[in-house]
Amino acid sequence: MQMITGAKPNFDITSAGIAAAAASGLPVNVHGMVHVHRDMGEFAFLIVRLRDGLIQCVVDQCTELIGSEDVRDEYAIRGTGKLYAEPRAPGGFELRLTTLEVLNKPHSPRPIHLGKKISHMSLEANLAIRPISLRHQRQRSTFRLQEGLGRGFRDYLHGQGFTEIRSPKIVSAGAEGGSNIFRLDYFGRKAFLAQSPQFYKQMMVGVFERVFEVAPVFRAEKHSTARHLNEYTSMDFEMGFIESFEDIMAMETGMLQYALELLKREYAADLALLGVELPDATAIPQVRFDVAKQMVAEKFNRKIKDPYDLEPEEERLIGELFKEKTGSDFIFVTHYPSKKRPFYAMEDPTDTNFTLSFDLLFRGLEITTGGQRIHEYDAQVAKMVARDMNPEDFETYLMIHKYGMPPHGGLGIGLERLLMMLIGETNVRNTVLFPRDLSRLDP
Amino acid sequence: MQMITGAKPNFDITSAGIAAAAASGLPVNVHGMVHVHRDMGEFAFLIVRLRDGLIQCVVDQCTELIGSEDVRDEYAIRGTGKLYAEPRAPGGFELRLTTLEVLNKPHSPRPIHLGKKISHMSLEANLAIRPISLRHQRQRSTFRLQEGLGRGFRDYLHGQGFTEIRSPKIVSAGAEGGSNIFRLDYFGRKAFLAQSPQFYKQMMVGVFERVFEVAPVFRAEKHSTARHLNEYTSMDFEMGFIESFEDIMAMETGMLQYALELLKREYAADLALLGVELPDATAIPQVRFDVAKQMVAEKFNRKIKDPYDLEPEEERLIGELFKEKTGSDFIFVTHYPSKKRPFYAMEDPTDTNFTLSFDLLFRGLEITTGGQRIHEYDAQVAKMVARDMNPEDFETYLMIHKYGMPPHGGLGIGLERLLMMLIGETNVRNTVLFPRDLSRLDP
Repeated sequence: MQMITGAKPNFDITSAGIAAAAASGLPVNVHGMVHVHRDMGEFAFLIVRLRDGLIQCVVDQCTELIGSEDVRDEYAIRGTGKLYAEPRAPGGFELRLTTLEVLNKPHSPRPIHLGKKISHMSLEANLAIRPISLRHQRQRSTFRLQEGLGRGFRDYLHGQGFTEIRSPKIVSAGAEGGSNIFRLDYFGRKAFLAQSPQFYKQMMVGVFERVFEVAPVFRAEKHSTARHLNEYTSMDFEMGFIESFEDIMAMETGMLQYALELLKREYAADLALLGVELPDATAIPQVRFDVAKQMVAEKFNRKIKDPYDLEPEEERLIGELFKEKTGSDFIFVTHYPSKKRPFYAMEDPTDTNFTLSFDLLFRGLEITTGGQRIHEYDAQVAKMVARDMNPEDFETYLMIHKYGMPPHGGLGIGLERLLMMLIGETNVRNTVLFPRDLSRLDP
Repeated sequence: MQMITGAKPNFDITSAGIAAAAASGLPVNVHGMVHVHRDMGEFAFLIVRLRDGLIQCVVDQCTELIGSEDVRDEYAIRGTGKLYAEPRAPGGFELRLTTLEVLNKPHSPRPIHLGKKISHMSLEANLAIRPISLRHQRQRSTFRLQEGLGRGFRDYLHGQGFTEIRSPKIVSAGAEGGSNIFRLDYFGRKAFLAQSPQFYKQMMVGVFERVFEVAPVFRAEKHSTARHLNEYTSMDFEMGFIESFEDIMAMETGMLQYALELLKREYAADLALLGVELPDATAIPQVRFDVAKQMVAEKFNRKIKDPYDLEPEEERLIGELFKEKTGSDFIFVTHYPSKKRPFYAMEDPTDTNFTLSFDLLFRGLEITTGGQRIHEYDAQVAKMVARDMNPEDFETYLMIHKYGMPPHGGLGIGLERLLMMLIGETNVRNTVLFPRDLSRLDP
């Protein structure tokens, strides 16, 4: 009987392995898609897309062609050859092919040139052919960094004793309330798409004390801005036995330090390709909401229109102000007004108009909302009633308050927004593989 | 200005740290929820729930009580004390408390006793109070193992050069087709919840060659069985430049070996608590679909009712048969009939009635479906047309076939099913934190 015993080792060349392979002097195998094909008459350059970068291959009269005489962009190929130093090639070496086999040919020529700058392309045009435009090097680096941020979040929290959870996305009630919720027919019953894992992560604090989740959330925002998506990835954590809501900010700071270190160590090529300068998260300043609002009003001579929330422009200016004052790209804004925070937010006992909550601004944009939650049953029920909510609608959620919870709190980080500010993109659609917005459902 | 510089170190006792803390002889700090409180007259035992296990604390007349005179189940507490050897206590030590502070009291007594066996509870009763029943030790171990399987999948594939992706869950067309798809109003347009990341992971093979995703999928199954959920976690990967669909089975085998090793190394306490015997994935046998069907018909004297698919009972018997023959808990069943496989499945060139596909059965239950996909545009369009599908409905998906793809394939693993078979549960609702089924939307 034929048995399967594990993955076959694959020694084909990768970008990361070019220098070592060249040093060995041995013949190398290559496989990949032809990223850019350049015919030079006597010979041709094939810039081949490897899974982690590019390699320059040379095809000339010494190359034995298998399966096809012509080789053009987006042909799937494999071959063998030898590496030679070539300072103008990616990685400093080129691969002179002795054999070249075509595994598949495209049906039609690719609609864009991947050797040119993608910044020349409009967002509309890019998204319309997303499966192909993502093959561009800048796009690949963007989404490798997205992976890196997710890994940083998970690995750091795992090291801090957090357990990973998976909460349902089809729910019977929204955690955020309001109208920006998608409705769904669930076997004849009314259901919703989760706006956040809020209720579930709080429930799980009673189980594991420290939990996190990285998963999609859904917001039926009816306006189209450069910083909103209707579906995005939320990186959430929630922790019990906090002494103050500052414990949550401290945990986030530690996570950012760890994630930035991970990017520096394992994603250096992508950072370089995108020209990203990593921020410093060694020490993040904090400022009260009301103080920050006042500072910005004075410094920039602005009228305060909404005393309960920050306008995007105010967030930008707070970022600017604290960058100037402290050198930090990050700033924690604390003690948001109770009025604008959800029903589960804990109020500041010294002034109940404010909550023990915070946002983290990164280069002037909110990337995190967090805070301490109410853990006492009577307090939570009273706050619901004061907001005209019916506690009976939240019976299972309230079980944790009823049967016992530690003091706790947590946060949610918008992965795409964090990535957007990190790499200096101006539209969050650029930092999600397949964006969902008012007009976009496809691809 | 006050700066946040990172997470405060926390040296409170954990289950994993009990032996080392006892050896040091130093006083220890503890925090947790009272799991079980046992009043012994002169003194009381508090079995305290730590994030990774339990610890037995002793309260007597020498304990200074802070904040409350009485301490009962689900009180959130912290204290200090010293460890003493006590063979009957969890971990072999008990903590005699010198101080004990109550941080929060529940509003009402807990509806179940967490010191008793949870198997006495019906699934209905368990799910009705899920936020509390999950605090049981068996439940906690179950979901730590769920975490471990997810980590094993991700970490192994990362090591094999795969990139993690995040595909949209609100989609314009279902990958699986059929009626088991949830419908959604998307700003006045018809949308669906993704049944699988199939189209997107294929698109991303053109970008990163090897990709994976661990994320929720949604199936509007209108029947209620012990092995179906309407929302579950799918662990998907897809890889380019395969030489045969066996490469996919080989990768899965390597992943299983790695994940099982990880559980053994890092989740030993949970495996022990649940009495799990890990299967051996060193070598997994494979058998053709038609051969397996015939073998089972002969051996168990059964009539073949449906020649195109396996009944659950047949899967069970195939599992039994190959366990007996080879000792393996796993068996790859290959070459499923084209008729029952999706439109993107590649047919076997030697007999197009069959596909280059497989299921993996684990202890008699299908936990994986995978296979090679069609990579040529003309072949894919022809197969769609033959199935009365309109290729224009799949324009963006077909861009990859049109503009060039390598030979590729992949698979999806149902995380909850894998966990169910691993720990010997009989209903998949037991291996999801908050199950969604025909009648369950809450909690």
